[in-house]
Amino acid sequence: MNSTDGLCSRDLDSVIKTKMSALGIDLGGTKLSAAVVCEHKLVSETRQLPTPSGAQNIIASILELIDHFRGEHLLAGVGIATAGIVNAQTGEVVGSTGNLPGWEGTPIKTIIEGRTMLPVHVENDANAAAYGECRAGHLEGKECIVAVTLGTGIGVGIVLKGQLYRGAHWAAGECGHIRISMDNRRLCTCGLWDCWEAYASGRGLKATAEEMVAGLRPDQSQLAHAACELDTRTIVQAAKNGDTVAKRAMLLWHEHICNGLVCLAHTLDPDCFLVTGGLSQVVDFPLLRELVADRTLSRVCEKLEIHPSILGEAAGMIGAAYLVLDSVVERIGH
Amino acid sequence: MNSTDGLCSRDLDSVIKTKMSALGIDLGGTKLSAAVVCEHKLVSETRQLPTPSGAQNIIASILELIDHFRGEHLLAGVGIATAGIVNAQTGEVVGSTGNLPGWEGTPIKTIIEGRTMLPVHVENDANAAAYGECRAGHLEGKECIVAVTLGTGIGVGIVLKGQLYRGAHWAAGECGHIRISMDNRRLCTCGLWDCWEAYASGRGLKATAEEMVAGLRPDQSQLAHAACELDTRTIVQAAKNGDTVAKRAMLLWHEHICNGLVCLAHTLDPDCFLVTGGLSQVVDFPLLRELVADRTLSRVCEKLEIHPSILGEAAGMIGAAYLVLDSVVERIGH
Repeated sequence: MNSTDGLCSRDLDSVIKTKMSALGIDLGGTKLSAAVVCEHKLVSETRQLPTPSGAQNIIASILELIDHFRGEHLLAGVGIATAGIVNAQTGEVVGSTGNLPGWEGTPIKTIIEGRTMLPVHVENDANAAAYGECRAGHLEGKECIVAVTLGTGIGVGIVLKGQLYRGAHWAAGECGHIRISMDNRRLCTCGLWDCWEAYASGRGLKATAEEMVAGLRPDQSQLAHAACELDTRTIVQAAKNGDTVAKRAMLLWHEHICNGLVCLAHTLDPDCFLVTGGLSQVVDFPLLRELVADRTLSRVCEKLEIHPSILGEAAGMIGAAYLVLDSVVERIGH
Repeated sequence: MNSTDGLCSRDLDSVIKTKMSALGIDLGGTKLSAAVVCEHKLVSETRQLPTPSGAQNIIASILELIDHFRGEHLLAGVGIATAGIVNAQTGEVVGSTGNLPGWEGTPIKTIIEGRTMLPVHVENDANAAAYGECRAGHLEGKECIVAVTLGTGIGVGIVLKGQLYRGAHWAAGECGHIRISMDNRRLCTCGLWDCWEAYASGRGLKATAEEMVAGLRPDQSQLAHAACELDTRTIVQAAKNGDTVAKRAMLLWHEHICNGLVCLAHTLDPDCFLVTGGLSQVVDFPLLRELVADRTLSRVCEKLEIHPSILGEAAGMIGAAYLVLDSVVERIGH
């Protein structure tokens, strides 16, 4: 902003910032969700499509969603949160994601901007969720906010003084692959051993329960019945019903979540962990806080907060939308 | 800097920056080292005193060192690198360090500035070393440089785009206390279990070798002789002599160093790890690089560099001196 026309354009900025809308799109392995975002919330219905296979088909679905919302809303841009390591400058997925074969290397931003003439920002989904949580929670002034997305895998987004920290090669926050054991005990889907997400994700909880029920009789645990088709919901429900094995699996899962948080706490010394993603709903926060306090230097944990997500499943869409809105405001302002 | 007198004051800045000297002081548990720093190197002899006990005596020794060097050098300031968690704004140790009893809470900056009328900057020693390495290696433009100091314990300094990252409560880089195992196998001096430094520091290497030689006969390993008084030098020498047990202990030590680096790599995605501290001299860098590559996502490790320190033992003094010089230049420039 030019300093000579300070107040005026600052007012304009603030009006633009609060009133502009953007489309937020969240691209996961199974579904593609989109909604219009304004003032840190969704202001349209959320439209979902099953994620098609192949880059061309995904691009076609994204264009279809943009066309749909464009008819009814004045959009200042499109923000896309996607699985995978993303070069946020070029808007391209540069690190493979097993869930979206063929997606790596697609120049998403260039294609969508060319076809829609709208500004587009592409971001890693955990980063977008972290940014959304920060903006909606007015946490931009904080030194360090770390959002941990617990789902099938684990994603982490790091926000330093209101800005996403993306690392030297766009791969910061690939904390799902922090190594939390020395024993090559459990193989991760990425091919490495003992990754945090092999234990603390939904897949990890399932693996822990499966190890525990192997060889048990149905009268010893409800889970022994369902051993071949265990899912996180079954485990959570059995624990609620008082099943000893399921309760123990849930406790171990909390310890596993804790172990990764302890690494992040001693490295980044954050103000706050925000735990988001589908599985955050079954996290016992008082227990998790107690475990982290027990395994962290007092100086690091005494002021460290651990909270559930504010935005829930909308975090990725809201964050992606705000990343494009902020870039538009920045371009107008300068 | 005011833009109207741009070139002129920029030239002045650059002259001031390159030609000013400061005293760099490195305060460790056993010794207090000081030397005059200019143009990223020591320009005086290094003076060492044994670290006295008690805050008052440490302050007296620091003042004695400043007085000594002041007689012969024009000092623009004093930089002090100290063990412990440091509030770099107030210049006070805010987190205890077992090696310096009574040091926590001492308003170091205020006292030394009051007594010498020189600008003083106080910094955590691992942070100061990281800053020194960055400045001397002209790495200020890099996204992320992580300096890992391997000594009796482990300290980590994180430099993001040329600036130290200190965390929300001054405790960033307390990575010696990253938890690298799930089994409560080894107790750290901090009271937590399975901290990285309980394995990958000098103390950790010693503990690993001690575990291995317990019950061995002298004809099975040279180390069995020295079991009660094992030190890192003995272990390194025995490994060089071909002792199987010592060689295995050294390999395990490299794996332990690797495990912490893997956590940091997936979290921060740095351009480079700089391995510094006394023990960095016995690190087998090709082996360490191979281990890290084997346990890290390819996107994270393919451009990741791992190098030995540039400055060696002088890193803390040089970094501390540059932190105070940079703050002086900043004050002049604005």
